[in-house]
Amino acid sequence: MPTIEEQKPVTLPPLAETRRATVPAMEARLGAPIPVLDHGFIRIVDYMGDDAAIVQAARVSYGAGTKTARDDAGLIRYLMRHWHSTPFEMCELKLHVKLPVFVARQWIRHRTANVNEYSARYSILDREFYIPAPEHLAAQSTVNNQGRGETLTGDEAARVLGYLRDDSMRAYDHYEAMLSQAQPDGTPQQGLARELARMNLPANIYTQWYWKVDLHNLLHFLRLRADPHAQYEIRAYAEALCEVVKDWVPAAWDAFEDYRLNAVTFSGKGMEALRRMLKGETVSREDVGMSAGEWREFEGVWR
Amino acid sequence: MPTIEEQKPVTLPPLAETRRATVPAMEARLGAPIPVLDHGFIRIVDYMGDDAAIVQAARVSYGAGTKTARDDAGLIRYLMRHWHSTPFEMCELKLHVKLPVFVARQWIRHRTANVNEYSARYSILDREFYIPAPEHLAAQSTVNNQGRGETLTGDEAARVLGYLRDDSMRAYDHYEAMLSQAQPDGTPQQGLARELARMNLPANIYTQWYWKVDLHNLLHFLRLRADPHAQYEIRAYAEALCEVVKDWVPAAWDAFEDYRLNAVTFSGKGMEALRRMLKGETVSREDVGMSAGEWREFEGVWR
Amino acid sequence: MPTIEEQKPVTLPPLAETRRATVPAMEARLGAPIPVLDHGFIRIVDYMGDDAAIVQAARVSYGAGTKTARDDAGLIRYLMRHWHSTPFEMCELKLHVKLPVFVARQWIRHRTANVNEYSARYSILDREFYIPAPEHLAAQSTVNNQGRGETLTGDEAARVLGYLRDDSMRAYDHYEAMLSQAQPDGTPQQGLARELARMNLPANIYTQWYWKVDLHNLLHFLRLRADPHAQYEIRAYAEALCEVVKDWVPAAWDAFEDYRLNAVTFSGKGMEALRRMLKGETVSREDVGMSAGEWREFEGVWR
Amino acid sequence: MPTIEEQKPVTLPPLAETRRATVPAMEARLGAPIPVLDHGFIRIVDYMGDDAAIVQAARVSYGAGTKTARDDAGLIRYLMRHWHSTPFEMCELKLHVKLPVFVARQWIRHRTANVNEYSARYSILDREFYIPAPEHLAAQSTVNNQGRGETLTGDEAARVLGYLRDDSMRAYDHYEAMLSQAQPDGTPQQGLARELARMNLPANIYTQWYWKVDLHNLLHFLRLRADPHAQYEIRAYAEALCEVVKDWVPAAWDAFEDYRLNAVTFSGKGMEALRRMLKGETVSREDVGMSAGEWREFEGVWR
Repeated sequence: MPTIEEQKPVTLPPLAETRRATVPAMEARLGAPIPVLDHGFIRIVDYMGDDAAIVQAARVSYGAGTKTARDDAGLIRYLMRHWHSTPFEMCELKLHVKLPVFVARQWIRHRTANVNEYSARYSILDREFYIPAPEHLAAQSTVNNQGRGETLTGDEAARVLGYLRDDSMRAYDHYEAMLSQAQPDGTPQQGLARELARMNLPANIYTQWYWKVDLHNLLHFLRLRADPHAQYEIRAYAEALCEVVKDWVPAAWDAFEDYRLNAVTFSGKGMEALRRMLKGETVSREDVGMSAGEWREFEGVWR
Repeated sequence: MPTIEEQKPVTLPPLAETRRATVPAMEARLGAPIPVLDHGFIRIVDYMGDDAAIVQAARVSYGAGTKTARDDAGLIRYLMRHWHSTPFEMCELKLHVKLPVFVARQWIRHRTANVNEYSARYSILDREFYIPAPEHLAAQSTVNNQGRGETLTGDEAARVLGYLRDDSMRAYDHYEAMLSQAQPDGTPQQGLARELARMNLPANIYTQWYWKVDLHNLLHFLRLRADPHAQYEIRAYAEALCEVVKDWVPAAWDAFEDYRLNAVTFSGKGMEALRRMLKGETVSREDVGMSAGEWREFEGVWR
Repeated sequence: MPTIEEQKPVTLPPLAETRRATVPAMEARLGAPIPVLDHGFIRIVDYMGDDAAIVQAARVSYGAGTKTARDDAGLIRYLMRHWHSTPFEMCELKLHVKLPVFVARQWIRHRTANVNEYSARYSILDREFYIPAPEHLAAQSTVNNQGRGETLTGDEAARVLGYLRDDSMRAYDHYEAMLSQAQPDGTPQQGLARELARMNLPANIYTQWYWKVDLHNLLHFLRLRADPHAQYEIRAYAEALCEVVKDWVPAAWDAFEDYRLNAVTFSGKGMEALRRMLKGETVSREDVGMSAGEWREFEGVWR
Repeated sequence: MPTIEEQKPVTLPPLAETRRATVPAMEARLGAPIPVLDHGFIRIVDYMGDDAAIVQAARVSYGAGTKTARDDAGLIRYLMRHWHSTPFEMCELKLHVKLPVFVARQWIRHRTANVNEYSARYSILDREFYIPAPEHLAAQSTVNNQGRGETLTGDEAARVLGYLRDDSMRAYDHYEAMLSQAQPDGTPQQGLARELARMNLPANIYTQWYWKVDLHNLLHFLRLRADPHAQYEIRAYAEALCEVVKDWVPAAWDAFEDYRLNAVTFSGKGMEALRRMLKGETVSREDVGMSAGEWREFEGVWR
C-alpha cells in the first residue's frame, strides 16, 4: 500500500517572475503534500491574492475618501465584523486533496467551489482505505445522535478494526477480480465495466480531487468543519487548512479567529438573560422562556 | 428486503383551494413514488409554476409591446432557441429521491439545486443495495474509457452478481455488528459511532434525499443525464424525470426536445464541411483539419 | 402619473384544488400589490412550502429515529440556532416587484435568486420616478460615511425636491424626444434606439422584475436589508417582505427573529470583556484590546 | 474631464519569484488599463492558471490511464466539444473595470462571479459620462425590438448628443449642489446624503468594480456578450476581454472559437431539413414545420 511518504511531490512549473500578489510562505508550501489521516493529503496547487488584495477591493467599494482612514488590518477586522463578505471573495485557493469518500461526501455539500474529482468511471481506484487510528475509534455518543462517545478498547476495538480492514481488502480483491480480463487461472473473461465495478467499494476508500474556492467561502467551510461538532475526519482536513490560511492571509485569519471561531452569538432571549445577569440577577431558563436545549447551550458558554 | 411496492406513499397535505398556478397532471403525480432501478424511486413533493409562468416572466422582460406578438408556445420556443434561460428559472420542482450512493455522487455535481440528504451520522441506513438486473451487467467498453460494452453472460455474470450480493450483505452484517450494543451472544459492548460504522458500506447502498431545482437547471441536468453517454443507472432517473417534465410544462418540454435533445451542434470546422457537402463536394477530415475523434463524431451524426 | 391605486391587480389563475402545501394567509395575499415607497410595490406571485415543509426535509436528514423527539417549532428553532440552512431552502417565494433602479442595483447583489427584469432594450419605461417624502430627505451623516443625518428642512429641502423632480421630468421628456419618430412640429425623424435612449434616465426611475428566492436566502436578504444600517429605500421593501414571511412560515419567522434579528454576536475579545463584567469587574477597551470602533459597538449593545 | 490617458496605472506589487503557473503575456498586461468606450477601461489585476492548469485538472478526472493519450491542445478541444466544463473552472481572472452604469446593469446578470463595486453610498462619483461616438448613435431597428438600425445623422444626431451631454452635465451639477455644504453664494447648508443624491445621476455615468470570474463562466459571458446581438457598448468590453483570453489560455481560446463562437446548433427540425438537403432535395419551411422566425434564422446560417 503506497504511503504518504512515497507520494512524490507533483512537478511544479519552473520558477518565474511575476507582478501578481505573492506570499512567500505560500510559495514555500506549493506542491508539497500536507499529510492528513492515514493516506490523505492536502497539496496547495495555486493561490490568488493576499491580505492586501482584500483591502484593495474594499477600497474600491469605499472610494478614495477613506484611503487613509485606518490601517489594513483594522479595515479587514471592520469588514469581518460587519459581514462585508465580497472583499474576501477576491482571494482564491486551489488545492489537490486526497480524502476518503465519506469525507468527500460531506465536503461536496459546500456548493460554492470548483471541483474536479478523480473519476472511477474512467479510471481504476487505488487500494487505499482509511482505517482509523485506535484513538479515533469512538463509540456512539449516548447523549447526542450525531456525536462520538468514549474510545473503544480491547476486544471491541479489535473486532471493529478487523471488520474494516478485512471488508476493505475483500471488496478491493473482488473489484479487481470483476475488472480483470482473466480469471485467476488465466481463463479469459470480458471484465466488468469500471463504472459498475466501483460500486462494490466501501466509503472509506480514498478518492482525489482538485478543489478551488474563494476565501470567503473557504472561511465559511472552516467555520463549520473546523468546529468541534464536525466529524473528526473532515475536521482533520479543516484544521490543516487553517494552518494554510494563517500563512496566506494572516490579517484575515486573525479577524476570522476573533469574530467567528472565538465569537459567541446570543439570541434575543439570551441577551435578555445576559442583561439581567449583568445587573446581578440570578436568571433561570423559565425567566427567559428558553427550551432545555437552549439553556444547556447558554450555560455551556460560561464553562 | 422491503420493495418499492411496500413503500407506503407519504401522507399528503389535505386537499385545499389555491390561486397558484396548478397543473392537474402534476396533482395526480404528487406523493406517489415512481419506481427506478430495483429499490429506488422518484416522488414529486411539490412544484411551482407551469408553462404560463415561463411566459409571464418573459413578458415582464419584453414589456407590454410584445404581448400579442406570438402565442405562448411560440414564445417558449423562441426563448429556448435563443438561450434566454431566466424565464425557465421561474418554475421549481421538489422531489424525494431514493438512489444508490454512487448515483448520488454523480447527481450532486449539479450544484445549482437544494439538497437535504438522509444523514448516516444521525441515522442507520437500511439494508437495501442496488444489484443490477442481468441485462445491465455490462463489460467494460473496449473503445471507450468511460463506456460499457456487451452484456456479461454465463459464469462471469454469475460471479459478478455473487460478489456484489455477498459483499453487500457481509458489509451490512458487519455494519450492524459494529453498531450493536451487544455481541451475538448477548455480551454488552459500546457500539461504534454511526458516523464511523457507515464507512464500511459500499457505494451500491441506497440513500435518500429531497432535491429542489428550477426548471432551467433541471433541463440542463436532463440534457447531460438523459444522454446515451450518461451511466445507465443515473439515466434511469433522468428518463423518469423526463416523463414528469412532459406532464408539468408540455410546451417547454417540446422546445427542449427540439432545441436540445434532438439538436446537433457543428463546430466552425464542421460548418465548413457542411457548406461544402451542400455544394455537392466530397469532404475528407483532412480538408477541414479535424482530428480523428472529431471526424468520427461528425460522421456519426448522419447515421 | 399612474399611482399604486390605479395599478390593476394581475389576473390570477382560476381557483383550483391542490394537494401541495397551502397557506391560507398567503392565498389571501396572492396577486394584490403591497405598496412600497411612492410608486413601488411587492406582489406575491407564487410560493412553495410552509413550516411543515422545512420540518419534512429536516426529518429526512435526521431519519425516522428523531421523528417524535421534539415538536415542529422546536425543531425549526434548533435548525436556525445551529445554522442548518438546507431545510429552509426547501421553501420558495416568487415576487413581482416595482422598485427604483438604485434600489434594484443594491438588491441584485444578492446572487442566489432568479430574476427577470423589465428590459429597456426592448420596451419603453414609464414616466415614474421615486421622489422621497419630505421626512426621508436626510442630510449626509457627519459621523458615518454611509449614513444619513438629520432631515433637511426649509429652502434646502425645497431645492433638493426641485432638482429631483425637474431633472426627472426633463430627462424623461428628452428620452421621449429621442425615441420619437417625429419632432414636436411633426417633422419625421428616425428615433434613437431604445437601448441607447434609456441611458439618459436617472437612477430614481422605476423598473420592475420577477424575483424568486428560497427561504434561506430570503432570510439572509432580510437580515441585511431590514437592518437599521440598510438604506431606507431598500429597507422599506425588506420590511414589507418581513410581514409576508410572518404570514407564510410563522415558526421560521419566530426563530429568525430570536436567533438573527434580535441576536448579538460577541467576538473573542467581547466574550472576554463579558466574562469579566459578569464577575463584577469594570472593563475598559484597553483591557481587552479593542479598537475604538469595536468598543463603541460593544457599548452600544447595552443601550 | 479626466481621460483614459490621464488614468495612472495602479501600483503593482514588486516583482517576485513564484512557482505558480505564470503566463508571460499576461504579466505584460498586468496593471495597464485597456481603453474601452470614451472613458472606460479593463485592467488585469490578477490571474490564476493557464492552459496547462486546465489539462492538469482534467487529468485528475481521467486518472493516470490517459496521461499520454493525446496532447494538451487535443484534450482541451475534447473537453470543450463535450461540454466538460469543470476543468475550465480551474482558471481564474480578476479585473478592474470602469464602465457606464447601464452596461454594469447588464453585466451583473452573470451571477457566478465575485464583484466589488464602487459605492455611491460612501463616496462621490466622478463627473464622467458615456457619450456615444457619432458612428454608434444608432436608430431603433425597424425589424427587431431589441436591435439598432442605421446611424443617426445631421440634426437628429446633433439633437441627441445635445440632450445626452446637457442632461449629464446638469444632473451632475445638481448632484454636486445637493451634496454641497454650502450654496453657491457661500451660505451654509446641510448637504443631502450621498445615498440619496446619487439617484439624480443618469445611467450613462461611469462606475467601477473589481470583477473576478473563472474561465468557464468568463467564456459563457463572452459567448453571450461578444455576440453580434449584444448591445454594442457591452460588446466593446467583451471584445477587449477576448484579446486577453487569447493571450492567457491560447489553446482554450482556439477550442472556444471553433466550438462556440463559430459553431452553429441545428434543432431537430433543422437536422431534418439538413438531411434532406444533403440528399439533394429542396426543402421548404412547411416541409419541416418551422415557424417563420426559425426558418429565417435557418436560412441566415448559409449566407
